[in-house]
Amino acid sequence: MAEQKKMVEAITPMEEDFAKWYTDIVKKAELMDYSSVRGCMVIEPYGYAIWENIHDLLDRRFKELGHVNVSMPMFIPESLLQKEKDHVEGFAPEVAWVTHGGTEELPERLCVRPTSETLFCDHYARIVHSWRDLPKLYNQWCSVVRWEKTTRPFLRSVEFHWQEGHTLHETPEEAKAETEQMLKVYADFCENDLAIPVIKGRKTDKEKFAGAEATYTIEAMMHDGKALQAGTSHYFGDGFAKAFDITFQDRENKPRHPHQTSWGMSTRIIGGIIMTHGDNDGLVLPPAVAPVQVAIVPIAMHKGGVLEQAAALQERLKKAGVRVLLDSGDQSPGWKFAQYEMKGVPLRLEIGPKDLEKGQCVLVRRHDRQKVFVPLETLEQAVAEQLEEVRRGIYERALARRESMTYTATTLEELKEIADEKPGFIKAMWCGDAACEEKLKEVAGVSSRCMPFEQEELSGACVCCGKKAKTMVYWGKAY
Amino acid sequence: MAEQKKMVEAITPMEEDFAKWYTDIVKKAELMDYSSVRGCMVIEPYGYAIWENIHDLLDRRFKELGHVNVSMPMFIPESLLQKEKDHVEGFAPEVAWVTHGGTEELPERLCVRPTSETLFCDHYARIVHSWRDLPKLYNQWCSVVRWEKTTRPFLRSVEFHWQEGHTLHETPEEAKAETEQMLKVYADFCENDLAIPVIKGRKTDKEKFAGAEATYTIEAMMHDGKALQAGTSHYFGDGFAKAFDITFQDRENKPRHPHQTSWGMSTRIIGGIIMTHGDNDGLVLPPAVAPVQVAIVPIAMHKGGVLEQAAALQERLKKAGVRVLLDSGDQSPGWKFAQYEMKGVPLRLEIGPKDLEKGQCVLVRRHDRQKVFVPLETLEQAVAEQLEEVRRGIYERALARRESMTYTATTLEELKEIADEKPGFIKAMWCGDAACEEKLKEVAGVSSRCMPFEQEELSGACVCCGKKAKTMVYWGKAY
Repeated sequence: MAEQKKMVEAITPMEEDFAKWYTDIVKKAELMDYSSVRGCMVIEPYGYAIWENIHDLLDRRFKELGHVNVSMPMFIPESLLQKEKDHVEGFAPEVAWVTHGGTEELPERLCVRPTSETLFCDHYARIVHSWRDLPKLYNQWCSVVRWEKTTRPFLRSVEFHWQEGHTLHETPEEAKAETEQMLKVYADFCENDLAIPVIKGRKTDKEKFAGAEATYTIEAMMHDGKALQAGTSHYFGDGFAKAFDITFQDRENKPRHPHQTSWGMSTRIIGGIIMTHGDNDGLVLPPAVAPVQVAIVPIAMHKGGVLEQAAALQERLKKAGVRVLLDSGDQSPGWKFAQYEMKGVPLRLEIGPKDLEKGQCVLVRRHDRQKVFVPLETLEQAVAEQLEEVRRGIYERALARRESMTYTATTLEELKEIADEKPGFIKAMWCGDAACEEKLKEVAGVSSRCMPFEQEELSGACVCCGKKAKTMVYWGKAY
Repeated sequence: MAEQKKMVEAITPMEEDFAKWYTDIVKKAELMDYSSVRGCMVIEPYGYAIWENIHDLLDRRFKELGHVNVSMPMFIPESLLQKEKDHVEGFAPEVAWVTHGGTEELPERLCVRPTSETLFCDHYARIVHSWRDLPKLYNQWCSVVRWEKTTRPFLRSVEFHWQEGHTLHETPEEAKAETEQMLKVYADFCENDLAIPVIKGRKTDKEKFAGAEATYTIEAMMHDGKALQAGTSHYFGDGFAKAFDITFQDRENKPRHPHQTSWGMSTRIIGGIIMTHGDNDGLVLPPAVAPVQVAIVPIAMHKGGVLEQAAALQERLKKAGVRVLLDSGDQSPGWKFAQYEMKGVPLRLEIGPKDLEKGQCVLVRRHDRQKVFVPLETLEQAVAEQLEEVRRGIYERALARRESMTYTATTLEELKEIADEKPGFIKAMWCGDAACEEKLKEVAGVSSRCMPFEQEELSGACVCCGKKAKTMVYWGKAY
């Protein structure tokens, strides 16, 4: 292994410089390239293929629950953005403004959508008239723009890809159920497909979405102990519906405003995959979204039918629905090993003259380097089993890390000490007062990540002010 | 039938007002809604589902030929747009300019991409170094913006969705072969999946893409005899590569510029589907892209197991991979018939108590109203056959119409007379001089649609100036 690694340029170890480790990976695994536009990136084929797989897996889940896709304009007239007060306050400072079309100045500025609540509401106001028109279960795949000062590939970019669901319902109960259902969809997707353990919970008022009554979130822990908000689901009540005059005749023929939700997951999750599973040799991809699940590297490939046999195995795996690649390039096997490790391919399949004699091949798991010798006749089954082993293995590794880096604090000193010395999450009780939240930020540098659905009674008193506690909160530093 | 039609609001007959017929269909079939942004539309679920099917069918073809998807920024800095002279002249007058981010004025204006040649070149210049890096076979699915004065749903909108392929090659021959290959892909897709007959050919210099050496096109004829450019494929030579300094070491280790192509198809093709196949009862969709291929309408559905049987048929068709919908709503069958006709569903399946007794159901083809009685046990096969009948039937109908509306002219008077009196295409010889092209526009109101690959020797002289003819051209009015 030592020899092989010399052949590819090494990446900065994460213990040495975590931020550099991250950008080394996104560049060397060829996920993205910087562009000539500040804060906007080129998503290269390997990175985009991951996003395409995420798209397909999520889109199938959405559609099974009755959602349909639409396309809204990418521009929002300034007057439309201003219709909902909290919303415009949250977003106006960070939008890109179009002021000219060709050589003419526009009569009204248009912003490039930072999110599309206002556009959906504008459309819904035109098409929703009766309770028979409800629910509306719309989703959109697109890119949005937020004029961020400091950007990082995938984690925070001026333009990013996402999906945004926007739904309308007859009753608050239905809308709340939708909000919770979609959070569960995200959590299920993260845990089962991305192998990323998440904490489900509700955001405090300070951290909620601009214009929402309630924001639900799933929070994942990265290698460095920081939190990544991986997906959010918002309940709006009828605030937007009132602001945009969306009215329907209810079952008693009375005019009413519908209740609304929105929910989104973005290319940011690719950053989450890197920082949850990656290691000092590069990316480690969950099999469900890996563009290549198995890389076949033939050994001494010009000897006695090795390449032919490798090609035959590739065909068999393709037929079995595996995303498989055969590397018959003229580089050394060692170089190829390092290459596919950098790219996070879950399984490497080695086959050489000796394996042929024995009627076997070797599967090597990317994440723990375990080698498995597999009789050729049972290859399909072995690959399926090993891909599942990878999924289970990286999930459990991430969960164990999160548990070992989650602490409990009952006093402010304790919390501050942990926050200063130990990266990770801190569980502590909170009275519900925004002032205490501010103070923890100021004193310990942590923000509230969420009020988890799974509550624990750590003590009766707020960790900050000592008054009666209302809820347990996960605190931490965040991306 | 007469009674049924009364129940849905009628659309304007195309013979009366073709433009109104078109907009009636896009609205009443719920393909789109106008938005608050001039020239930008909301693509509603039914319209967007058509685009998703187009996406999937084209994307599969691209990937089978080795193309990969990427994502470029949606913005182009002004200086980047200006690097290729012809290109900026063609596009600068019709772009949207972003001048402010949040409250700050930008140091350099950004345009919202009208097309992405400049962005791809900028990226390629960074990542292409050796002949080993070639070819680059990239494609992008996105929306682009062109600040058009006059807009029409799908046909010409300020923002539209498309795919844009951008490829780089070692040699001119390879790049030309790619240009032609992709035109064939588009033609095959139009004829086999969309059932739209097209004429393949090359654009004259006047009509070619800004910055291209050669533009190839497929041209379809609409109901009203006008042409719709359905897809284009461009050969750039090394013009962009020089302007953007894309250089690679060739096999002899000498620095060279690669040769380039781009090719695109857009949501405009949805307008083409409407105006090729639609009729005065609404949309007629080709089965390959129809969101619903079979609509099951139960007759007297609460009698003796009709609804249960209809549901069982739905399950069987779903399993067979058919996109099928069962309408168990409380409207009358007649209302439902008219509804699915408006929406262009290729096949309607009727089943009632009498059919149950006979162990049969009825399939009704949307485009020619043919009824077929089908024994229930062979339903899957019958549906597959009838869907193919629809595809073949609407293709042949469109082809026959195009042939009956294509004329030949050998003199200017003849051409003018046809252009004035008969909507359609006019085949005529041309000397290759742009002045004659201008004159035909001026005198007869027609533009050159293409120089078709399938040439005919209609006469030896240019239809306009009488000098020696170089090529046969299709002339016509166009969308």
